[in-house]
Amino acid sequence: MKEQRSLAVVLFPEFELLDVFGPLEMFGALQGLVTIHTCAEKAGTVASAQGPQAVAEQDFRSAPACDLLLVPGGIGTRVEVENVALLDFLRRQSASAEVVMSVCTGAALLAAAGLLDGRRATTNKRVFAWVAAQGPRVRWVEQARWVEDGKFVTSSGVSAGMDMALAVISRLFGTALAEQIAFGTEYEWHRDPSWDPFARLNDLT
Amino acid sequence: MKEQRSLAVVLFPEFELLDVFGPLEMFGALQGLVTIHTCAEKAGTVASAQGPQAVAEQDFRSAPACDLLLVPGGIGTRVEVENVALLDFLRRQSASAEVVMSVCTGAALLAAAGLLDGRRATTNKRVFAWVAAQGPRVRWVEQARWVEDGKFVTSSGVSAGMDMALAVISRLFGTALAEQIAFGTEYEWHRDPSWDPFARLNDLT
Repeated sequence: MKEQRSLAVVLFPEFELLDVFGPLEMFGALQGLVTIHTCAEKAGTVASAQGPQAVAEQDFRSAPACDLLLVPGGIGTRVEVENVALLDFLRRQSASAEVVMSVCTGAALLAAAGLLDGRRATTNKRVFAWVAAQGPRVRWVEQARWVEDGKFVTSSGVSAGMDMALAVISRLFGTALAEQIAFGTEYEWHRDPSWDPFARLNDLT
Repeated sequence: MKEQRSLAVVLFPEFELLDVFGPLEMFGALQGLVTIHTCAEKAGTVASAQGPQAVAEQDFRSAPACDLLLVPGGIGTRVEVENVALLDFLRRQSASAEVVMSVCTGAALLAAAGLLDGRRATTNKRVFAWVAAQGPRVRWVEQARWVEDGKFVTSSGVSAGMDMALAVISRLFGTALAEQIAFGTEYEWHRDPSWDPFARLNDLT
C-alpha cells in the first residue's frame, strides 16, 4: 500500500457545498494517509452555490499532480463546462491520477473534458439529461449510487459523494478503515453501488 | 409563517467539516427564506479539523442577532469549551433565537455555556462521556439521532446534523419543502429521532 496520497479538490464559483465537504469529511479522517489540496482557477476564497465560502489554497498552475482528484457539481457547472482552464486542469490531473472522482453534476465537467468517452458513468438524477448532453459518447447509467470504470468513479447527486468516498477509501485503504470512518461520523454508509431510490425521480421519463 | 429567517453558524479552529456543511447544504437550499451568516471570534479564514478552510464573514461582535443558530462540533471544541468570547456569543444569540441547533460535540459548547441546564440533549456517541461532563445538569439522552427540547435541538455525531436540519426545516417551513430538499440532494433522510444504530458504540459502556 502506498504510504501517503495527495487529493486535489476542484473549487469553482457556485460549487455545491456537500459535494465537496461530504467526501472531504471522509478523506479528511485519513490524516497521515491523505493530504488535501483545495484548487481553483485563482487561489483565494470561492463562494458556494449555497453562499458560504471556502478557500482554494492553490491555483490550477501551482497545484501539484495528485493521486486522487475530486470534482464536485453545483449550479456553477453550467458555466464551468465552457471553462478551458478548468477542463485543461482536469485532463492534466486525470492523466497521472490513480482515482478520479466526481459528485453530482461534476460528471458534466469530466464529460466536457472528454475524459469519460467510452466509459460508464452516472450523475445527479434531477438534471440527468443536461449532464448526459455534455458527453454524447459516455455510456450513462441511469440507476446507480456510483459507477466505477477504471480510474473514474462518478457518483449520483450530492449525498452520493459520501458513499462513493467510503467505497474508494475501502478499496485504497481497506474496509476496516472505511467502516471506522463511517462509525466515527455516525454515517449510514450505503455500500451497494446499485442502491438508488432516486433514479425514479430522474428527468428522462 | 415568517418570511425570511437568518441563520448564524459558529466557526472555530478545528471545527468538523460535515457538522457545518451538512446542515448548511440543507438550509442553503432555502434561498429567499434563509440567509446564512458565518461567524467566528475573528472574521476571515478558519481551518477545519480536516484541513480545508472556510470563511467567517462576521466576528462575534458584528454578527446580527439571528433567528437560527448552528453550533458544530469537532476536535476544536476541547479548547472552545473554555473560550469566554465564544460562550458569550452562544448565550447572546440563544437568548433571542427561535431555534438553537448543535451537531456532535457542539452540544459540549452549549452545555459549557449553561444553555442546556435542565434540558434533554444528545451528542456524539464516541465521546459521550466527555461531552456529558461539560454539563452535569443536562439530561443527556444516550440513544437518539437528535433531541428537541424547547428551542434547543441537539444532534448526534456529524452526519446526524443533516437529519436534524431537515427536521427543523420541516417544522419551520413544512414537510413538503424538507422532502424536496432531501430528494434534490439524493439524501436518505432519517425522520425518526429515535433511530440511532450508533448508540451501541458509545463510550459509556
